[in-house]
Amino acid sequence: MASDDQRGLHYEQTLMYGRYTQELGAYAKEEAARLREEGVRRPSVTERSRSLELLENDKGCCAKCRICTVRCQKFLISCVGEDWIFLILLGLFMALLSWLVDFGIGICLQSQKWMYVNLESNVFLQYLAWVTYPVVLITFSAGFTQLLAPQAVGSGIPEIKTILRGVVLKECLTFKTFVAKVIGLTSALGSGMPLGKESPFVHIASLGAALLCKFMSLFGGIYENESRNIELLSVACAVGVSCVFAAPIGGLLFSIEAMSTFFTVRNYWRGFFAATVTAFMYRVLAVWNRDEVTITALLPTNFRQDFPFDLQELPAFAVLGIASGLGGALFVCLNRQIVQLIRNQKTIKKFLMKKRLLYPALVTLLVSTLTFPPGFGQFMAAKLTQMESLETLLDNQTWSKQGIPEEFDSNSLSQAWKHPQVNVFVTLTLFVVMKFWMSALAMTMPVPCGAFMPVFVIGAAFGRLVGESMAAWFPDGVHSDGTIYPIEPGVYAAVGAAALSGAVTHTVSTAVVVFELTGQISHILPVMIAVILANAVAQSLQPSLYDSLIMIKKLPYLPELGWGHHEKYNICVEDIMIRDVMYITLNCCYRDLHDVLLTGHLKTLALLESSESMILLGSIERAQIQALLSLQLGRPRRLKYLRDRATAEKRLSVGSHPGSEDGSTMVNQEVHFQVNKISTEETSLSSTPTPSMKPLKPALKRPSVVDCPTEIPMPTSPQDHSGSTLKNLFRVRPDIEGLEDDFHVDDDMTIREIAEWEENQLDEQVNFDNCMIDPAPIQLVESTSLHKTHTIFSLLGLDHAYVTSIGRLIGVVSLKELQKAIEGSVAVKGVNVRPPLASFRDSGTSGTIMNNENKARDLHKLWNRRKLMSLPQEHRASDSDEKSK
Amino acid sequence: MASDDQRGLHYEQTLMYGRYTQELGAYAKEEAARLREEGVRRPSVTERSRSLELLENDKGCCAKCRICTVRCQKFLISCVGEDWIFLILLGLFMALLSWLVDFGIGICLQSQKWMYVNLESNVFLQYLAWVTYPVVLITFSAGFTQLLAPQAVGSGIPEIKTILRGVVLKECLTFKTFVAKVIGLTSALGSGMPLGKESPFVHIASLGAALLCKFMSLFGGIYENESRNIELLSVACAVGVSCVFAAPIGGLLFSIEAMSTFFTVRNYWRGFFAATVTAFMYRVLAVWNRDEVTITALLPTNFRQDFPFDLQELPAFAVLGIASGLGGALFVCLNRQIVQLIRNQKTIKKFLMKKRLLYPALVTLLVSTLTFPPGFGQFMAAKLTQMESLETLLDNQTWSKQGIPEEFDSNSLSQAWKHPQVNVFVTLTLFVVMKFWMSALAMTMPVPCGAFMPVFVIGAAFGRLVGESMAAWFPDGVHSDGTIYPIEPGVYAAVGAAALSGAVTHTVSTAVVVFELTGQISHILPVMIAVILANAVAQSLQPSLYDSLIMIKKLPYLPELGWGHHEKYNICVEDIMIRDVMYITLNCCYRDLHDVLLTGHLKTLALLESSESMILLGSIERAQIQALLSLQLGRPRRLKYLRDRATAEKRLSVGSHPGSEDGSTMVNQEVHFQVNKISTEETSLSSTPTPSMKPLKPALKRPSVVDCPTEIPMPTSPQDHSGSTLKNLFRVRPDIEGLEDDFHVDDDMTIREIAEWEENQLDEQVNFDNCMIDPAPIQLVESTSLHKTHTIFSLLGLDHAYVTSIGRLIGVVSLKELQKAIEGSVAVKGVNVRPPLASFRDSGTSGTIMNNENKARDLHKLWNRRKLMSLPQEHRASDSDEKSK
Repeated sequence: MASDDQRGLHYEQTLMYGRYTQELGAYAKEEAARLREEGVRRPSVTERSRSLELLENDKGCCAKCRICTVRCQKFLISCVGEDWIFLILLGLFMALLSWLVDFGIGICLQSQKWMYVNLESNVFLQYLAWVTYPVVLITFSAGFTQLLAPQAVGSGIPEIKTILRGVVLKECLTFKTFVAKVIGLTSALGSGMPLGKESPFVHIASLGAALLCKFMSLFGGIYENESRNIELLSVACAVGVSCVFAAPIGGLLFSIEAMSTFFTVRNYWRGFFAATVTAFMYRVLAVWNRDEVTITALLPTNFRQDFPFDLQELPAFAVLGIASGLGGALFVCLNRQIVQLIRNQKTIKKFLMKKRLLYPALVTLLVSTLTFPPGFGQFMAAKLTQMESLETLLDNQTWSKQGIPEEFDSNSLSQAWKHPQVNVFVTLTLFVVMKFWMSALAMTMPVPCGAFMPVFVIGAAFGRLVGESMAAWFPDGVHSDGTIYPIEPGVYAAVGAAALSGAVTHTVSTAVVVFELTGQISHILPVMIAVILANAVAQSLQPSLYDSLIMIKKLPYLPELGWGHHEKYNICVEDIMIRDVMYITLNCCYRDLHDVLLTGHLKTLALLESSESMILLGSIERAQIQALLSLQLGRPRRLKYLRDRATAEKRLSVGSHPGSEDGSTMVNQEVHFQVNKISTEETSLSSTPTPSMKPLKPALKRPSVVDCPTEIPMPTSPQDHSGSTLKNLFRVRPDIEGLEDDFHVDDDMTIREIAEWEENQLDEQVNFDNCMIDPAPIQLVESTSLHKTHTIFSLLGLDHAYVTSIGRLIGVVSLKELQKAIEGSVAVKGVNVRPPLASFRDSGTSGTIMNNENKARDLHKLWNRRKLMSLPQEHRASDSDEKSK
Repeated sequence: MASDDQRGLHYEQTLMYGRYTQELGAYAKEEAARLREEGVRRPSVTERSRSLELLENDKGCCAKCRICTVRCQKFLISCVGEDWIFLILLGLFMALLSWLVDFGIGICLQSQKWMYVNLESNVFLQYLAWVTYPVVLITFSAGFTQLLAPQAVGSGIPEIKTILRGVVLKECLTFKTFVAKVIGLTSALGSGMPLGKESPFVHIASLGAALLCKFMSLFGGIYENESRNIELLSVACAVGVSCVFAAPIGGLLFSIEAMSTFFTVRNYWRGFFAATVTAFMYRVLAVWNRDEVTITALLPTNFRQDFPFDLQELPAFAVLGIASGLGGALFVCLNRQIVQLIRNQKTIKKFLMKKRLLYPALVTLLVSTLTFPPGFGQFMAAKLTQMESLETLLDNQTWSKQGIPEEFDSNSLSQAWKHPQVNVFVTLTLFVVMKFWMSALAMTMPVPCGAFMPVFVIGAAFGRLVGESMAAWFPDGVHSDGTIYPIEPGVYAAVGAAALSGAVTHTVSTAVVVFELTGQISHILPVMIAVILANAVAQSLQPSLYDSLIMIKKLPYLPELGWGHHEKYNICVEDIMIRDVMYITLNCCYRDLHDVLLTGHLKTLALLESSESMILLGSIERAQIQALLSLQLGRPRRLKYLRDRATAEKRLSVGSHPGSEDGSTMVNQEVHFQVNKISTEETSLSSTPTPSMKPLKPALKRPSVVDCPTEIPMPTSPQDHSGSTLKNLFRVRPDIEGLEDDFHVDDDMTIREIAEWEENQLDEQVNFDNCMIDPAPIQLVESTSLHKTHTIFSLLGLDHAYVTSIGRLIGVVSLKELQKAIEGSVAVKGVNVRPPLASFRDSGTSGTIMNNENKARDLHKLWNRRKLMSLPQEHRASDSDEKSK
């Protein structure tokens, strides 16, 4: 149903997460090329306005007035092009949207509560209402999303991360996705399931920015600039976080840490500005709505400021941090295991794939049954919504002193944590354990949802548990001299929230989010220590949640270089590069192209000057080569050949009739030209370097790519219909080929003749005239370090780079090799994979000298070749030589 | 005296700031090359330890014990290599140092106060003490710094910024500089002058990191990795800020914003960790020293939390921000004007250059006279130190209500602001105005000092002024309904401090620094709005203080791409590149090298395959070419020639004596070889492409570099001693040349013969065998955008890049062009310099097609050339062609 959105990209809508089956990098490139071509065809906006102006001048009447209008218009357009206009618009729009979504969620939750309260007389009806309501909402969310835009499912941060890496996932940034995500998110969160708003909102903000860019590009051409739009996308991420927590700084920092590999500092200002506007607007809306008197933090706390914590409490915070780190790693692992379990169980998968809405409904049923307040829910404060639980957990008071539960205000929300029979500790522990697996499970539902907020709440509950234990252990605080400073469990809750969410997302900025959320920064050191320890533990055990999702979704993303693994500093390009590079030369024939396409699967091929010199000239995309081949072997050209032959034959037969000469002169010349061309091509073709020549130059260590095809069974027998071999290369458009087959009967060539003709055509030399060649592919040297390579790849969004030595191609490094190299040394297997040549290079001196010698030898070779080649020009050159003396 | 530190680098110690006269980029490269060579010679640490292990195995006695020791050692070494060990050590060390410096400053300031109080009886003596004390301290600081390490003068942030950009300023990171900076800073700040501790501490932390790296490299080889050390330097900047304000997050963000263009996100974690350790240690030291009960913020404030500010106060904050922006720009401008005034006034400069210590002494005298408390100082709270003023300015109370000054506690520091005759407003205004120019002036003294802290204090005072005015205007606050929330001028002070310091440094992170410094974050929105507005104003008027210092010091730094100037998105490399590229070809002769060296001044030259193909093979440094030439024309080679000739003559004269044949066979062959070589070289030389051939290929638009030398008066007359022409190229080592001149008399060649010989030598073809060639210089395409170029340049620390099209060199872009292009469009002149070719490209369609046509034409040319060249190989090729059929 959503097939029109998925044109060309093989997106497989799986049960829980979509999976991309085509290599996205390749698709992105094709898409970019298509866009480029479209851009050429469409006249630019500036041109249109210019023509308008000319028109105005022509008319002459009311000239002044019109000129004034045009000028005003121009000024407005130039204003629209300014960054700050865009940022303010984006900020205001997203804040408003976030507020509206909150409003919608609030209504949904309230109506559930209202139903629950009004049906208190009948427990069964109560249960039915409690369970049916979320099931309906989640099913609606899943169904709606799936119908409108399946890409809206899930967190969205992995996709944005991939887009920021330079891969164009176009269908992730459409208006349909936007609508699906907003409505799906509202109904999903309205169900009260343990889902988060934060990461979907990052996606929504990115969508908003992309759509706003598109809208603004109607006014000013600057919004058509691709690199600028990518920069604005990364700003949008900050806006997304900022409008959920009203945390401008934390939002910006979180978006930097979670999304980018390299951050452009000039973008920092933009992010700061947009995030501030967003947070401001979001909180002002609350003031205007009379929820608040003035702008304050979202969840203001009231911790002690003059003595925020004692130095002796720090070990407790450190333990909390380490435990959170373990918990975070466990969460990521659990989530992945659930996905893989269901993916691997073929029968379950088959069944669930048929009834896609069954899975979310079942999960919701399970979770809401367990949280039914009169049932098991009474032991885990299930009455409270996420924000309410968070508010109570950050509470200033101590809930339990020396094991005896304290009295709460009767109208306080915190009462939900109190159970007449059960201890507060048990309630908290149950809450943590149950919510933990529930969140990990709920996240796998195919609805727009995130995990940050549930994890944040679980962390706060865990922190509260530790804090309450500390308060019970040291009822008079730990400070030794004089004044009594009781322990505040609320501080532990804040610390735990930051630590666990930091551990799951592998960020340290959650600390800043906590400060901005609570409006207090005095407990900065405990929070930061816990967050850092949690990160250290979690990073050494598991990838971040977003990286884990990227792996599950198989998005084309380059893994991060970890910190501390210093072996990686010793790896060079020469250790990881592939030496057997597929290449074509300037003077190759179509047969070579054909062979190369048959053997290799790389998306681009290197174009060399010649296979002796190995000088890299550029790279050609596979699609371009296919186009060249199809042009050469296609039916139109064959028909033309037939026509030409027929004309020639006719001319031969009517050779003595001078009457028809006038009409056929044109054709005549054309044929002549054609013949000439073929003959010259044949002479040049005969000079094509062929495998037989190669053993003469063993020092080049030339890869034997071109040798291989000769061993592949080739359709050389004349009976074979060799057109079909070619067709294998073009499986993409089978219908067109089918059409051609139908027409084959019409032309009078036998299959044998066609085969012969095709054989001849294949031997012609390639004409690269109309071919799109990338004229300067990125080149590395053998000694480029892994770090630098990683930098270049992630900054420029490459998927391969050629390794050259003095202009000569010696290898290629693609994303795959780089991934292997990074993961090889990041792997937690204890054994560090030593790259094959590293030991050789370690012996310092000899390696360098070797390199120099090699270089010298290479140069010598080029030089000798030149001497050989330049012989014919000797005469002219010596003339000029005399002149210059 | 400090000449040993300055070897090779032309550092000119000027009056106020040092200035670099040599192009640092070039020096850095040479230095890097030298280091590389050194590195090759020295065996690596791992090797040493390996050999140790082998030794252990050989001995055999106590084997187990020894093996155990070695293993422990290895484990320890591998631990030392871990990042976190380094970061903890750095953090602890810097925190301790910062605390010690604070301690020293405190003692200095206390003793001044003590003198001032004890001499209260005699005003003249009091004045003398008040003035002499700082003059002595500042003079000592200036003298000490100058003697030990002149590089320690000033802020240090500009230098670190340049180092992080990839330029090695080696003398900035020595132990001497470290000592000079620490001691100089302590005494300079101890004088009570309006100087700052923050930016020198960034330098000190970087020095600390560099020295720690050097120290740690004794244990583990990983610390010898250059790129890792650069990463650690950027961490050190965060540590530097963090240990001054105890602000880990603010420190990290400030260091990112102020120092880097692109931030590696994997470094974020390191910065966070190190900064937290530093801040923690710094504050724990205060607790241990019994200054504090527990860890709190450095300047804890006590603003109202439940109602931090009213929405209607926001316009006042915005005005404060805009005014701070103007003030920040003015400060930067004033500072630069003072420097330039003194630099331009020749007579003053001359006089002051002779007596270098006079200038700081005079400035100190002026400033301390004006701040003498019984004199003018009583109107500007001169009794208070910087930290004390800041503390009082951030005070919670309102100093003035409805114009009537309130009563302070008698023991409160705030009393200093109260003057019996004069209003608080006047005191504050005087303080702001006087401190403003005093700080700008004091910053120009040649002592280690920064400007952040004084600017911060001035901003706080200005904010307080606005706040007090607001409080006087709205005595009952601005909130309309019900409760009275009086205005808190302290909040305005905090906002002003963040805004002004943000405007001067062009950073927004000062907001975070303020939150961490005060321990309160509830007033986040006013602070951020003011900081953003201040930045917007300041950035559009002036460069940041650090960029201004970079300009004054003429450090090799690439200016930042401003935000919002969207014209720059339209600039491509083809608009800014230089098309006349100096190049040499593989088959050129020494004369070409000679000519190229005479005409151009570029540091590197492109090496092409040939001037017809224009295929770029690599680049060669100028020094390498000079070496090649000196080898070819040098005396040893000439002597060899003479010897050979003599032998040949001797052989001719004794041709019939068969007895001597055995001994001279070797020489004989050698001579033969020599002759052969020359003859082949001459034939190939005659094929050298010369200007006469160029008009045949106008489409290539080849730059006419090689044409130029022929017009330059060349020493072609045989009477000329052409060795002297060469010598012009080697002015660097005149003494060596002088030596050679002395020996000239010894050999029996006449000057004419030498000239002839040299002429012959110059016609030989160049042998690049022993030449260091950069095998893969960075290549751009014509259509690479300015943004991407800037990214590549700043990330890889380039100073030039070649522009190629399908392997063919068509231009070069150097740092200079890039700087021009960026500044051209950043300039605030209203007229945006339209790049020459931009209008051509704007007409969308035609440009793209043109490009494609060009490409096709280029390819055609290469192809034709190939055909021409490959003719001799026809036979072999056609053989193999038959085979493959």
